[in-house]
Amino acid sequence: MNKVEEFRNYRKLMNERILKSDNKVIKRIFSIDTLAYNEGFLDSKTKEIVGLACSLVLRCDDCVKYHIEQCYKLGLKEEEFFEVLSIANLIGGTIVIPHLRRAVEYWDELVKFSK
Amino acid sequence: MNKVEEFRNYRKLMNERILKSDNKVIKRIFSIDTLAYNEGFLDSKTKEIVGLACSLVLRCDDCVKYHIEQCYKLGLKEEEFFEVLSIANLIGGTIVIPHLRRAVEYWDELVKFSK
Amino acid sequence: MNKVEEFRNYRKLMNERILKSDNKVIKRIFSIDTLAYNEGFLDSKTKEIVGLACSLVLRCDDCVKYHIEQCYKLGLKEEEFFEVLSIANLIGGTIVIPHLRRAVEYWDELVKFSK
Amino acid sequence: MNKVEEFRNYRKLMNERILKSDNKVIKRIFSIDTLAYNEGFLDSKTKEIVGLACSLVLRCDDCVKYHIEQCYKLGLKEEEFFEVLSIANLIGGTIVIPHLRRAVEYWDELVKFSK
Amino acid sequence: MNKVEEFRNYRKLMNERILKSDNKVIKRIFSIDTLAYNEGFLDSKTKEIVGLACSLVLRCDDCVKYHIEQCYKLGLKEEEFFEVLSIANLIGGTIVIPHLRRAVEYWDELVKFSK
Amino acid sequence: MNKVEEFRNYRKLMNERILKSDNKVIKRIFSIDTLAYNEGFLDSKTKEIVGLACSLVLRCDDCVKYHIEQCYKLGLKEEEFFEVLSIANLIGGTIVIPHLRRAVEYWDELVKFSK
Repeated sequence: MNKVEEFRNYRKLMNERILKSDNKVIKRIFSIDTLAYNEGFLDSKTKEIVGLACSLVLRCDDCVKYHIEQCYKLGLKEEEFFEVLSIANLIGGTIVIPHLRRAVEYWDELVKFSK
Repeated sequence: MNKVEEFRNYRKLMNERILKSDNKVIKRIFSIDTLAYNEGFLDSKTKEIVGLACSLVLRCDDCVKYHIEQCYKLGLKEEEFFEVLSIANLIGGTIVIPHLRRAVEYWDELVKFSK
Repeated sequence: MNKVEEFRNYRKLMNERILKSDNKVIKRIFSIDTLAYNEGFLDSKTKEIVGLACSLVLRCDDCVKYHIEQCYKLGLKEEEFFEVLSIANLIGGTIVIPHLRRAVEYWDELVKFSK
Repeated sequence: MNKVEEFRNYRKLMNERILKSDNKVIKRIFSIDTLAYNEGFLDSKTKEIVGLACSLVLRCDDCVKYHIEQCYKLGLKEEEFFEVLSIANLIGGTIVIPHLRRAVEYWDELVKFSK
Repeated sequence: MNKVEEFRNYRKLMNERILKSDNKVIKRIFSIDTLAYNEGFLDSKTKEIVGLACSLVLRCDDCVKYHIEQCYKLGLKEEEFFEVLSIANLIGGTIVIPHLRRAVEYWDELVKFSK
Repeated sequence: MNKVEEFRNYRKLMNERILKSDNKVIKRIFSIDTLAYNEGFLDSKTKEIVGLACSLVLRCDDCVKYHIEQCYKLGLKEEEFFEVLSIANLIGGTIVIPHLRRAVEYWDELVKFSK
């Protein structure tokens, strides 16, 4: 199994397990998480770019993977992707670089996988 | 002196003091900081929105103020501003709320000051 | 005006301003924030202790103040308060100490104010 | 070897290696770490809940695993466990969700392993 | 009262208040905090430089002030000070810049005050 | 392949991939990253110690590995290494301990590999 499928399967499996717990607070946070990136005054692509950049500066690899998937679906181009990375790198510093490596690796796998 | 002028003056004064130290590394970081938000594959407004959201989740009030100023100059509307805030709040959690309060206060002062 | 009233007034004023914006995502996060600390399988006091400790290790002074107020209302004693502080200090390191200082200062003001 | 044993073995092995270095500062921090969660004005279970929640918002998977083990030993029930997770998720935001997934996975493995 | 005296007085006052609580965990952390920066295999100046840089990347202004005082006492020169700042800025990113401003301001006040 | 080679190969491969993107901002940050640790008013060893400690408190395992390699090349001794770890542990708290484990493991592998 490649990295893309591995990530998607684990995410799906564990999200279902978490929601099965029937904790109201967690369920509501999960449902807001869908709502927040819908088209609004800002379009979804801009919002997902924001999600990607925030995930990078907060250095959460799984969050980065998720937002890479969403950005890619919404048509983000490679040059734009690297600009998001560059701003995150500048704001968050060199400490973000290892996450840049894994982000670019995932982007490349996703592009290959999507063909 | 109002909060807008106070922030701008202190920022300008201390940036000059820092650059006078003639430390090459700091000077280069400062110069990249200008470069990074220029029009590119992504437009400046999108980049400044990213800067604002990252500053919020990293909970840096002065960075938030700076990017609010840049966003405002580039025509960000209040409804859009609150959407940036909402995504930062969701990603960064309730710990971001005190920074939301100060961000909205600064936005309101800036709007008033700019009239 | 003392620190307790100052904090409460600013918090109330800005929360109202934020909610007036009518952003659905923010409104829902604010409403979950009330829900989450209600009596459940864990009692409210335990939950507020958790809120206080998390605010300390994340080093958010305003969040600390808020949870100090809630803990105090729910009968947290000074010895218990310092035990919460001690675990936060241990987990979060000496970087948390300046926030301990401000937490204790606020606790003392609140006790005095509540008499 | 399952995840529970793997974690315990690595933790034990490396703690011994670290303590063998005979660095006084590290040794004292390790010894306070035992002291801090003892019964006090707050009971051990409450303290371990605090340890778990702080580890989640600081997003340290190994710390989460350790406190899950301690909480489980002290009788934390699954419903209580999810309430701790929910508060951490709310305070720390959606960035905490990947750590929730791994926490729940570890909890499930621990329950299975302990039977 | 200038910023140097204000910081020192508040720090002293609140440390005394905290230690008066007689919480063993906090007292031990405070006492390790003194021990850790003593001459060892590394000299105190190197250790205080480390303390300063860590405080900057963790963005704790009061910790920065404290380590500036210690570094200054141990003979750190302005050029060296700016090199510490530059590495912290690079590692921690532009989000550290507001803390650089306040660090330089405090350094300048300390130099003036110490004359 | 051992952990040292694995880390070096992945780092080299992905850095090349990132730089191939020809994003100016990222390229400049990478080039400053080389510049910053050169001999200056502070010597390279002190700067790399700072890099190591900052990486530890920011809890970035790959950054820790990189600076361990640099420190080792510049002659850092094991006793000094543990003193850097101890200060990072004190400042950053027990949340840093899992990163200490992996740092010591990598140090040991590097020493063995370098023989």
